Amino acid sequence: MSDTLAVGKQLVEFCRLGKNLEAIEALYSPEIVSIEASGDASMPARMEGLDAIKGENDWWLNNHEVHQMQIEGPWPNGDRFIVRFKYDVTPKAGPMAGRRFTMDETALYTVKGGKVTQEEFFYNIGG
Amino acid sequence: MSDTLAVGKQLVEFCRLGKNLEAIEALYSPEIVSIEASGDASMPARMEGLDAIKGENDWWLNNHEVHQMQIEGPWPNGDRFIVRFKYDVTPKAGPMAGRRFTMDETALYTVKGGKVTQEEFFYNIGG
Repeated sequence: MSDTLAVGKQLVEFCRLGKNLEAIEALYSPEIVSIEASGDASMPARMEGLDAIKGENDWWLNNHEVHQMQIEGPWPNGDRFIVRFKYDVTPKAGPMAGRRFTMDETALYTVKGGKVTQEEFFYNIGG
Repeated sequence: MSDTLAVGKQLVEFCRLGKNLEAIEALYSPEIVSIEASGDASMPARMEGLDAIKGENDWWLNNHEVHQMQIEGPWPNGDRFIVRFKYDVTPKAGPMAGRRFTMDETALYTVKGGKVTQEEFFYNIGG
């Protein structure tokens, strides 16, 4: 099995168990780059390094009640793979607190030397 | 609406109607580059130009009976978007003729100047 496919399968397994932080620790490069579709001052579109990525994931996990999730993939091609995430969640804080919604996203991962070096998120906005 | 999202929505609409060739004619750049996860001499992994891409699509459409399809997306991010395709098909010719199977793929498209300039295919192989 290629590195890409092996890493992709492990990442999907971790996320299906809700172990997103463990996935980052086990599979991500220290030089990880994370790119969101959009950002602002408090949550920039581009983040670098394990601490920033772990912090963002930690924030997300602590601030959302997850009712249901569906994770599909990986779809590999060369040194990249795609995963699709559907989360049915209710934010616990902020302007959307208490408003349940479904988040539908795909993520494109790049693998170098057996580690995830880049993650890029794509959102389905009413497709 | 951004160019990327508009092109993505149109592409999904065309494909849901089975109008893949019309999608290529309306939305693809003459300099389109298409990248499959793998290839061989008769069907190379990298193809360039409208004629090559149309030829491949034409071959696919003519050589598969499509029982059902499910097309999801687009998921946009900047100048790229992802679409997910699930096809329940039976090949009409070749070594797999008559053997019904499900093809599950995601495609990553790049848009420049309002046209699709690159398509890259990712396959789910028993994820």
